[in-house]
Amino acid sequence: MKKSIFYHAGCPVCLSAEHDIIELIGAQNVEIVHFGEDKSRIAEAEKAGVKSVPAMVTPNGNVLHINFGASMSEVKA
Amino acid sequence: MKKSIFYHAGCPVCLSAEHDIIELIGAQNVEIVHFGEDKSRIAEAEKAGVKSVPAMVTPNGNVLHINFGASMSEVKA
Repeated sequence: MKKSIFYHAGCPVCLSAEHDIIELIGAQNVEIVHFGEDKSRIAEAEKAGVKSVPAMVTPNGNVLHINFGASMSEVKA
Repeated sequence: MKKSIFYHAGCPVCLSAEHDIIELIGAQNVEIVHFGEDKSRIAEAEKAGVKSVPAMVTPNGNVLHINFGASMSEVKA
């Protein structure tokens, strides 16, 4: 199975969701991207349709916005 | 593993998310509850912290609101 990508920005909501997602789908099935550590991935996430974090892009390209931590404009600020 | 519970109300956003969740975590790991078919589950979902659908309650009781289909007040209307 192609991996999902979970994007987050280190906020408490993000970390809680990250923990849940890893529990549910398994760490081996998801790549975790922290924008605070890698701002170069922001453009790719926006292109995939990510509007806020935490969000997960599934292997088939759907975006699941999970709860609400921060908007992408806050992430870029 | 205890099952997650995925609550939805049949809206297009709900059905898309349902499909993704089943792909990701497996149909055997999640109970699907459709409020349109079973309104008696609404109170239980609200008690668990569900504010909008689609939403998933994880085995440890966390609520993941996934994208946004409808508020619980719309579901009850």
